[in-house]
Amino acid sequence: MSNQPEHAEHEEHEHMEPREPNTIYVGKKPTMNYVLAVLTQINNGSDVVTLKARGRAISRAVDVAQVLTKRFATDVKVQSISINTEQVKSTMTGGMSNVSSIEIKLGK
Amino acid sequence: MSNQPEHAEHEEHEHMEPREPNTIYVGKKPTMNYVLAVLTQINNGSDVVTLKARGRAISRAVDVAQVLTKRFATDVKVQSISINTEQVKSTMTGGMSNVSSIEIKLGK
Repeated sequence: MSNQPEHAEHEEHEHMEPREPNTIYVGKKPTMNYVLAVLTQINNGSDVVTLKARGRAISRAVDVAQVLTKRFATDVKVQSISINTEQVKSTMTGGMSNVSSIEIKLGK
Repeated sequence: MSNQPEHAEHEEHEHMEPREPNTIYVGKKPTMNYVLAVLTQINNGSDVVTLKARGRAISRAVDVAQVLTKRFATDVKVQSISINTEQVKSTMTGGMSNVSSIEIKLGK
């Protein structure tokens, strides 16, 4: 039913689609975890890293981008932001519901 | 101390700055309240309406933009999205803390 058997999700489904390279899926963990994940990607040679988040994690993705660009990697800038609506299967009812998503492209 | 004496705020401070025309500050109310507020502005002749939100209300601002552009006003499009960091005085500790913000410009 799901490709993330390691932990149950309630409303954010952070890893539903196959993971793309240079993409960090922001979920329920503390903001700094994702900041460090982006920094690691950049230090490994990525010029562009994309943050993706759904539902309530959207605010955290914005936090990650801000903490990173204002404090930890001031040479990294927000290159583009897009928002969208995704259909997810509710784990509670089994029906489909719409959830907003955000994609923040960061790069040097 | 505050210019919004009518209701106490905990973490989102939706109306701290002077209100700009054509700007909807998204806070803790239900998403549809803000969707209707934008629709009202557009029906009153505004070509561009800006959604602003801080902290956890950011996800709701994205929801408002999506519900509006996908369901209620399909001629309205997201024109630009910007994110920023604002300094707010914490109502709990009195100290300054950083909060992420989003600005979503909607227009025909």
